Amino acid sequence: MNENLRISIAGSGNLAGHLGSILKETGFSISQIFARNREKGQNLANALDSQWTDIPGKILQETEILFLCVKDTVIPELTLAFAPYLNPGTLIVHCSGTTGLEQLNPFEKKGVFYPLQTFTPGRKPDWIHIPLLLEGDPETLQTLTFIAKKISNRVEIMNSEQRSVIHLGAVYANNFTNLMAGIASKIASTVQVDHTIYLPLLEESIAKLYYADPIAAQTGPAKRKDLPTIEKHLEMLSKSFPEYVESYRLLSKMISGS
Amino acid sequence: MNENLRISIAGSGNLAGHLGSILKETGFSISQIFARNREKGQNLANALDSQWTDIPGKILQETEILFLCVKDTVIPELTLAFAPYLNPGTLIVHCSGTTGLEQLNPFEKKGVFYPLQTFTPGRKPDWIHIPLLLEGDPETLQTLTFIAKKISNRVEIMNSEQRSVIHLGAVYANNFTNLMAGIASKIASTVQVDHTIYLPLLEESIAKLYYADPIAAQTGPAKRKDLPTIEKHLEMLSKSFPEYVESYRLLSKMISGS
Repeated sequence: MNENLRISIAGSGNLAGHLGSILKETGFSISQIFARNREKGQNLANALDSQWTDIPGKILQETEILFLCVKDTVIPELTLAFAPYLNPGTLIVHCSGTTGLEQLNPFEKKGVFYPLQTFTPGRKPDWIHIPLLLEGDPETLQTLTFIAKKISNRVEIMNSEQRSVIHLGAVYANNFTNLMAGIASKIASTVQVDHTIYLPLLEESIAKLYYADPIAAQTGPAKRKDLPTIEKHLEMLSKSFPEYVESYRLLSKMISGS
Repeated sequence: MNENLRISIAGSGNLAGHLGSILKETGFSISQIFARNREKGQNLANALDSQWTDIPGKILQETEILFLCVKDTVIPELTLAFAPYLNPGTLIVHCSGTTGLEQLNPFEKKGVFYPLQTFTPGRKPDWIHIPLLLEGDPETLQTLTFIAKKISNRVEIMNSEQRSVIHLGAVYANNFTNLMAGIASKIASTVQVDHTIYLPLLEESIAKLYYADPIAAQTGPAKRKDLPTIEKHLEMLSKSFPEYVESYRLLSKMISGS
């Protein structure tokens, strides 16, 4: 196997752009961008030295791998739209944590290439550390592993069910963690302090986890069952942020286990 | 003002060790360590080229600043214990987020020096970025600011009430964030994956917050009101982790605002 695979990408959003860039950086070339949004599609195609189309019937028939970098809900319909126009041997791949492999069923060769990361426009991802979760038959896995190992040091094979468990955990690790930062930020705003005061603390809370399991790393009033502090906090919240009382109570209970 | 202040530290734990080290590194010297634990106290005193005692009556009378690096609950009794033996002009300082300045009342000169960070034994803190929250009368603030600015780039003056608001937010930023990482870890363990798979995601979730407010940075199924994914997650949790259902439901509701 070599870098001369004919790769196309469907999508022109965040993930399409970041994945296209890293594929190019690691020596692959992108034959074509399929994107309904003409401006974004053409811009991305230009950036990647590739062609652009917005018509499924004009997808390059000789595409060997087509990455679907689109919203989860669009995956099945797009798969159906491409099916008549691609060679039967084309490998179609989605990049979703929560979508099963079977959503690509019209294709015989199908796979999953799920990067466990949150992507932001204009912010270069640190791909080498991003876990890439792959799924497919043995031949597909051989192809996807070849690509994935050029991009990241952490490549894992998982089936759809395992991947959806990891995706569920990611809601806690990413979305709910961000919510915690947001609540801290709102609380600090009452004394005219912005959220950046918490960034060194947030960073260190995460950095510690390279050396200790989060269960072992737990500290704070709930962990040490410091009831006076917990009561004081609940009282402060009742006055200024009654909408946070329930979360403080529940999360403290989950930590203290009582 | 210069570095020849006669500084002593009460305590031999995590914070006493880290604060003693950074004071020494930034050019101050530590005259004495007071610690009830003989072994830890003597070890710390040796590391800092200072003396050790475990008897309040043997505290060096000429101490100009005494930092209390002890548990919140011990602050009042220790303050009372030292009061008869120190010069009336001694500045006594506690390092607690949640303890008011008035807990140091027997002393005329009193202050707060609260580093907003989580400290771990054996893990060198990145002091330059740690917010240091100071409180005291103008003369005390002059002394504490002189010391704090040698240690950190972020020094803030706050009264006890403001500091306790920041401390409450820190429970979200640190303890509850760690809980989220712990839940993610437990979920991943059901498919034989350890928590390290989430570390790049957790790091990026925080790193983004240097460029965006957490409210603006919020993503995920709850934010985009993706009910099918939320329902799927709740169903998965009901089967494998019924104890997490309430947290998923509540935190999603807080994000979606419905």
